[in-house]
Amino acid sequence: MASTGVGLIGFGVVGAGFIDVLGRNAEAIRQRLGFDVELLRVADLDIKTDRGIKLPKGMLTTDAMDVISDERIGVVVELIGGVEPAGSLVLEAIRRGKHVVTANKALLAERGDEIFEAAAAAGVNVAFEASVGGGIPIVRVIRESLSVDKITNVYGIINGTANYILTKMDFEGKSFSEALSEAQEAGYAEKADPSLDVDGLDTAHKLVILARLAYGIRVGMDDLYVEGIAGITPQDLEIAEEFGYRVKLLGIAKDVGGAVDLRVHPTLIRDDHLIAFVDGVNNAICVCGEASGETMLYGQGAGRLPTGVAVLGDVVDLVARVRLGVPARPAVTYLEPGLKLLAVDDVVTRYYLRFSTLDVPGVLAQITRVLGDNSISISSVIQKEHAERTDVVSIIMMTHEAKEADVRKALNEVDRLDVIKASTFVMRVED
Amino acid sequence: MASTGVGLIGFGVVGAGFIDVLGRNAEAIRQRLGFDVELLRVADLDIKTDRGIKLPKGMLTTDAMDVISDERIGVVVELIGGVEPAGSLVLEAIRRGKHVVTANKALLAERGDEIFEAAAAAGVNVAFEASVGGGIPIVRVIRESLSVDKITNVYGIINGTANYILTKMDFEGKSFSEALSEAQEAGYAEKADPSLDVDGLDTAHKLVILARLAYGIRVGMDDLYVEGIAGITPQDLEIAEEFGYRVKLLGIAKDVGGAVDLRVHPTLIRDDHLIAFVDGVNNAICVCGEASGETMLYGQGAGRLPTGVAVLGDVVDLVARVRLGVPARPAVTYLEPGLKLLAVDDVVTRYYLRFSTLDVPGVLAQITRVLGDNSISISSVIQKEHAERTDVVSIIMMTHEAKEADVRKALNEVDRLDVIKASTFVMRVED
Repeated sequence: MASTGVGLIGFGVVGAGFIDVLGRNAEAIRQRLGFDVELLRVADLDIKTDRGIKLPKGMLTTDAMDVISDERIGVVVELIGGVEPAGSLVLEAIRRGKHVVTANKALLAERGDEIFEAAAAAGVNVAFEASVGGGIPIVRVIRESLSVDKITNVYGIINGTANYILTKMDFEGKSFSEALSEAQEAGYAEKADPSLDVDGLDTAHKLVILARLAYGIRVGMDDLYVEGIAGITPQDLEIAEEFGYRVKLLGIAKDVGGAVDLRVHPTLIRDDHLIAFVDGVNNAICVCGEASGETMLYGQGAGRLPTGVAVLGDVVDLVARVRLGVPARPAVTYLEPGLKLLAVDDVVTRYYLRFSTLDVPGVLAQITRVLGDNSISISSVIQKEHAERTDVVSIIMMTHEAKEADVRKALNEVDRLDVIKASTFVMRVED
Repeated sequence: MASTGVGLIGFGVVGAGFIDVLGRNAEAIRQRLGFDVELLRVADLDIKTDRGIKLPKGMLTTDAMDVISDERIGVVVELIGGVEPAGSLVLEAIRRGKHVVTANKALLAERGDEIFEAAAAAGVNVAFEASVGGGIPIVRVIRESLSVDKITNVYGIINGTANYILTKMDFEGKSFSEALSEAQEAGYAEKADPSLDVDGLDTAHKLVILARLAYGIRVGMDDLYVEGIAGITPQDLEIAEEFGYRVKLLGIAKDVGGAVDLRVHPTLIRDDHLIAFVDGVNNAICVCGEASGETMLYGQGAGRLPTGVAVLGDVVDLVARVRLGVPARPAVTYLEPGLKLLAVDDVVTRYYLRFSTLDVPGVLAQITRVLGDNSISISSVIQKEHAERTDVVSIIMMTHEAKEADVRKALNEVDRLDVIKASTFVMRVED
């Protein structure tokens, strides 16, 4: 039998959570699966900080290679995060025939293909339940339960920090920057650079992973349209609610008939859809299948223990496979003929447009003329005092379905009108 | 290699759905898994009715034994439903070394132990994703993803018909019997005998299965307290909403510290919980883990295609295991030392009580005295005109936490008071 020992690289918050969950459930795992999960080595550059976890003498090392080169170790858990040095370590582990468990969405989104190919060549598994949705078992559900259905649409709230900020803005009328500060105080957003969360990049990383699993397509970060939440005002959230919507930062991967529409942006969702009520740091992912209909998974999208559970689930699964001698399976199966990717210009959706204009007669006529000239038809209009400036007003419009290219062209024209005082703010609608 | 052919017993609504989904996704399954799922025989007493599915000549038979005894068949799918003859056929298939996939919750709840023991003795798998929650992959999630966590609480809306009826009553003010008729017209409730759905028995069957998986306990139908929804009036739903709750028929399995509290009954759920908004025929199941926190799975709990997806997922999984020669795993692992079951008398919860009383002075004093004498303390009171009778009034009380035994004793006394005109109606609260 191949080695079944487990090694961990990255003894940070999630790493400690993984060891904690393993300790609490060792006896139940032994009874359920008939074996022990043997954690043999733990590597971290910092082996001094107390993580509240007692490890046997000699288990800790500052050298990740001590984990990767240990012959007793068959499963390497990578919880460092970030593309490097995590990527090199993962590839080296794979090259040495180790199975890998990782929670590293940035690495998988940026260099997934390289890693999956290396794993296929070495005949090892790469498991990554914890990379999307923390404790929510979305990877297993798409990969196993729903892999026998044709998935038509996957979308979700997969960044808890952005959702926390939007919830604060919505429930307490806070501005984006106030809500961000609170998220930083609460430890949900990074103090040094919160951009990964608020600019939509972390959501995009996870969406790339979900899109590969759901559609069997080759896709990378360059294929996505990504927009964050920094431009949203509390007034936008209020007005969206008047229109019957709530605003969420969504990752969307939609089969629009032979092409996959991939986007990350703040989205208006009808207030009679369950996902509209997913608040705070929680995550939720909806998967629509041709036969299975809409399934939603909701839960804690981050946190040391929920993520630790996801990592441990993968570890247990891989140890069981090694023990049984089950051949490795591909991390992602690319289907042929593959679906194309929809160009963002060809996206068709409804739009929420907020114009910042002078409060003078004829403004509405000028805006609507430009929209009409570009085949954009309007379903509702509201005029409000501007949220931050007293010399301008906000005119908010909901459009009927329109093509992204037409909307961009129209807004380009509108924003050059003399009466327009700031770039028009855009959100998209999922009905 | 052992036989990998698939045979189906029961070509009804779900059986046809299974074959339909298999046909639609055969190519994707071939690419993802590298093999074909070969359906070889289909048995049903009725082989004349057109199910909209074309089968090759000679595939249909009226004799289930043609499926079970076919040496090319390694996986038998049982979709007849009901305890017999399904039970005998499943046991015979197991005895002959066939793996079994079933959607039959009644059979598993009533005779699960016998079937699981037979499967263990024969070294075959019994898979039953479709038995709970239709297209929602709750069995896989509890069995695999969350099996590495300690589950503290499982509860859910797992009967779509009852939820449809409650939703109709709530949104349209319909009485129970009107809403039941509509559910029957819509094909959601059986015309001949809707009791399995409305009396809570179907929910109880599924809860037994969930409780075995979540807690590793031996449990049968006799261990549950079961109550249906027939006693609820639209007024109850309205008043519950005034108190900040919505009413759902829940199956609840809760670890209350060394003992599992197992119940099926209409339940008041706070209206800030996501599950309170699960309406119509949809299902949702919440699983709370010590480490993973609360996870909720939502989706279509019934229907030919969603259930067909669940069945096909199990079939594909078993065929893959047979092909790889993976040893069978137990359907349920009973943990030692096992948790005890909580006696219903020892349940502690909050109660919604509706008293039907004469509209005379002193009634409230008489009722509250009896409650007080039995250590039941009241948190809110509302008096309304009675929903159906003009000579009586409804007094509705929400209690603080109280013991079931005390509540029963108190209501026994209250119901014998002269001013009480009908048995007091009781619902329980989950906060």
